Amino acid sequence: MTIKLYTLCGANPKQTFSPHAWKAVMALRHKGLDFVEMPVAFTAISQVEGGVSNTVPVIADGSRVVSDSFLIAAYLEETYPDGPSLFGGPGGEAAARFVESWTNHTLHGALRSIILGNVHDCLGPEDQAYFRQSRESRMGKTLEEVTANREQDIKAFPTHLAPLRVMLNSQPFIGGSAPLFSDHIVFGAMQWARIVTNARLFADNDPVETWFERCLDLYGGAGRAVSAAA
Amino acid sequence: MTIKLYTLCGANPKQTFSPHAWKAVMALRHKGLDFVEMPVAFTAISQVEGGVSNTVPVIADGSRVVSDSFLIAAYLEETYPDGPSLFGGPGGEAAARFVESWTNHTLHGALRSIILGNVHDCLGPEDQAYFRQSRESRMGKTLEEVTANREQDIKAFPTHLAPLRVMLNSQPFIGGSAPLFSDHIVFGAMQWARIVTNARLFADNDPVETWFERCLDLYGGAGRAVSAAA
Repeated sequence: MTIKLYTLCGANPKQTFSPHAWKAVMALRHKGLDFVEMPVAFTAISQVEGGVSNTVPVIADGSRVVSDSFLIAAYLEETYPDGPSLFGGPGGEAAARFVESWTNHTLHGALRSIILGNVHDCLGPEDQAYFRQSRESRMGKTLEEVTANREQDIKAFPTHLAPLRVMLNSQPFIGGSAPLFSDHIVFGAMQWARIVTNARLFADNDPVETWFERCLDLYGGAGRAVSAAA
Repeated sequence: MTIKLYTLCGANPKQTFSPHAWKAVMALRHKGLDFVEMPVAFTAISQVEGGVSNTVPVIADGSRVVSDSFLIAAYLEETYPDGPSLFGGPGGEAAARFVESWTNHTLHGALRSIILGNVHDCLGPEDQAYFRQSRESRMGKTLEEVTANREQDIKAFPTHLAPLRVMLNSQPFIGGSAPLFSDHIVFGAMQWARIVTNARLFADNDPVETWFERCLDLYGGAGRAVSAAA
């Protein structure tokens, strides 16, 4: 049975921008599994699979429903051991938690002040109201206050990619010679930004941009097929 | 034949402070291998095993001489597959390169302005002259200029540990339920600081400090046995 994957979209259902949902898309493609993507709006997440989760991604694989991108990857690794490994062994799975923490803290933290306004602008009216209220409440600031130093934050952003840039001197992917789920985790963050803004987030001649382009090429260009103009 | 491990020491040969050498100490103990540690001064590295490397650690395992902490770990993993794994598989080995890059860039970068003066002060006179000249030349600043904002940098340091702090909500080590070489990489940085300074580098009730204490307890308290007062 084809797996259902619920992702997040803006007013345009083809503009699927969630960084966490992108990790699940890449994990399913990495495993070579058939799936149908079902983009939903923020305010429709509560109706997904009977309201199992407050967030996407959610997958429904027959009677098994799993939410949270990391738990989805772990589920796929365990359930479909014959497909290419997502973790390259238990050490890779454990270290992916560190990559996830670094990405959520450092990259998502730095991207927020750059793209939250763009995310808001790509939503439909009902989602815009929800997004503004929930984010402003969480951050204790208006969206306009969060993004007040956007231009300077864009200029500073490439410095946050430094650990990845240094690593790329040793190998082409966090997974080594080929991508693993750790690459998909970081890809999700940069794809989130790519889909909602034209802001330039790489340095000139940045090895990290070359890595990102390699990730966009994976699985028949699955990541490249979605863009702000989709 | 017992492995020889060359590490770095201050004027006191028991004060072995090099973060990179500590990674090799922990890797050898992790594998349960017999080794003899041979601490040398900065200005004696050029005489180690015929001048094979400008840096420590260096190991001599019979006729095999290996330098660079990561290459030493990879050599031990390949040569002694029966001991506990240092990487937990190929994905863990690849991800350890990311942990190494993050540690070198983010932690070592932030520690420099805090501890370079302390490192200088623990060296013998000939090493002090070498250390000052080489570091000042590399950084384009005097040691005093590099450490001018030391007190503020100490206060800010715990923020750099945030990705590790977030990860520790999921698991007790970067290696998962038990340490892997990735833990030893980060441990090396914090042990470097611990051995040369009393500066407090953790937040109050910091899970990262609890992790560091767990690392100090490993292998019969090997890390705890060495301190500034040794």
